[in-house]
Amino acid sequence: MHSIEDRLRATADRIASAMDSLLPPAQGPEQRLLEAMRYAALGGGKRLRPFLMLEAGRLFDADENALVRAGCAVEFIHTYSLIHDDLPCMDDDDLRRGQPTVHKQFDETTAVLAGDALQTLAFEVLADTATHSDPQMRCLLIAGLAKASGPHGMVAGQMIDMERGTEAGDTAGVARMNRLKTGALISWSIDAGALLGCAQDDARHALARYANDLGVVYQMVDDLIDVAGDAGEAGKAVAKDARAGKVNLVTLLGVETARQRVRLLAAQAQNHLAIFGPRAKVLSEAVDFTLERRY
Amino acid sequence: MHSIEDRLRATADRIASAMDSLLPPAQGPEQRLLEAMRYAALGGGKRLRPFLMLEAGRLFDADENALVRAGCAVEFIHTYSLIHDDLPCMDDDDLRRGQPTVHKQFDETTAVLAGDALQTLAFEVLADTATHSDPQMRCLLIAGLAKASGPHGMVAGQMIDMERGTEAGDTAGVARMNRLKTGALISWSIDAGALLGCAQDDARHALARYANDLGVVYQMVDDLIDVAGDAGEAGKAVAKDARAGKVNLVTLLGVETARQRVRLLAAQAQNHLAIFGPRAKVLSEAVDFTLERRY
Repeated sequence: MHSIEDRLRATADRIASAMDSLLPPAQGPEQRLLEAMRYAALGGGKRLRPFLMLEAGRLFDADENALVRAGCAVEFIHTYSLIHDDLPCMDDDDLRRGQPTVHKQFDETTAVLAGDALQTLAFEVLADTATHSDPQMRCLLIAGLAKASGPHGMVAGQMIDMERGTEAGDTAGVARMNRLKTGALISWSIDAGALLGCAQDDARHALARYANDLGVVYQMVDDLIDVAGDAGEAGKAVAKDARAGKVNLVTLLGVETARQRVRLLAAQAQNHLAIFGPRAKVLSEAVDFTLERRY
Repeated sequence: MHSIEDRLRATADRIASAMDSLLPPAQGPEQRLLEAMRYAALGGGKRLRPFLMLEAGRLFDADENALVRAGCAVEFIHTYSLIHDDLPCMDDDDLRRGQPTVHKQFDETTAVLAGDALQTLAFEVLADTATHSDPQMRCLLIAGLAKASGPHGMVAGQMIDMERGTEAGDTAGVARMNRLKTGALISWSIDAGALLGCAQDDARHALARYANDLGVVYQMVDDLIDVAGDAGEAGKAVAKDARAGKVNLVTLLGVETARQRVRLLAAQAQNHLAIFGPRAKVLSEAVDFTLERRY
């Protein structure tokens, strides 16, 4: 039996190798753009979203090639969002996964364009017949990813995150921001796995509840790392919200209450998997992994 | 008989009204993002790409609703590219269509995010069943738009434009840059009209040649406006290439030779329409309009 860490690493390698094939080779007068796309997309990362998609799809014996390609698409979107989030006009971060951010390694111009092109590539991959033979399925994936990542999802969450000032803030507002900024893409990843496996409605709904709780756990652990983590271990700047005078769920609730809350939510996420029995063991372990991560 | 200007204006109004319905209402904590998207997308513009798509589609009696929605998608992509091109780290422009650019009217953060979200919205619109009942058609549109606008198209052209320094430059390299930066999206617009009209291969190929020549005419006229135009009349900064020490086809060929060349190309574009007979009158007039525009 492989540990969850082994499985995550194996999936991360597989996704990185598939992303490598899907990214254009870095050549021609536009080489700098393509190098920056590759630098950002292939420079490590847990590949948690593709992992969740693959494991959700495997519950229903979905086609592995389709899962890997759709997993690459969500990782291209995630990568583009990190490049743009790190820009000087956003979070102004110099470090990502322990490496210089794209605008530091290249420049701002290249960072904006590499993010733009990675977004386009995600949709190009999903629209390709190689992803799935049924165009109806491909359209469902594209529509879902667009909804999760665009003005109704991730980008809206990022706007709210950038806008919120030092005012007290309320838990409901912060929770909605998190749901848009990180929850929507995590939820879509899991739903895409179920879709590709042609899952029944009750199974999709159980997974949607699991995904929702897991998304909150993920964000609260992120906030705990920001509040109480170590930059060296995290591979990125910490205490960013505090320095920006921003509240998050951890500063609103206090570290101890937040730790309690996150453990409760993790247990609740795992309970939603009950209908799948032992088949959902890996998705259940993914919750523990998310809860215990330090970076 | 309506003049080409009247037809352009009527189409522009129709596209703007459809874009208005497709854009999310500006409300909620993410209001600033949605306001910036609306400001950029609804703030005027000739809507030349949707116009060409509609007129190409009408040659084959394509469904008008499908043409309008796909026209909105290309205009969302075009708008996102203008917002990002105007950023301080790109062309650093304060003025667009005679109005403050998005980062001037709002700020850089909002401009990056509004561009990102408009790109996503374009693919969301195309993936929607309301655009076309056949998912195969929707996937073809999405794949084509992604190819024309992403790392194989528009964004690559923009990267080359940003990278090129003050070295002499050669005509072939500048021509390729133009084909990627502006030609690809114009060509896709026209091809999408033909696709939606289920045009035969020979008709599609004739339109592709027309589109290619028209794209060069469009870019050369742009360069002529930059070299010899007036900022007030153009509604944007002029002499930008000269100030940046960059070459373009007009500076490479000289104004008079460029004017001759562009007239020849315009005639050639019109000749490609011969197989359509008088039905293609508007597409032919669109060439004259492109040739004679001053802004």
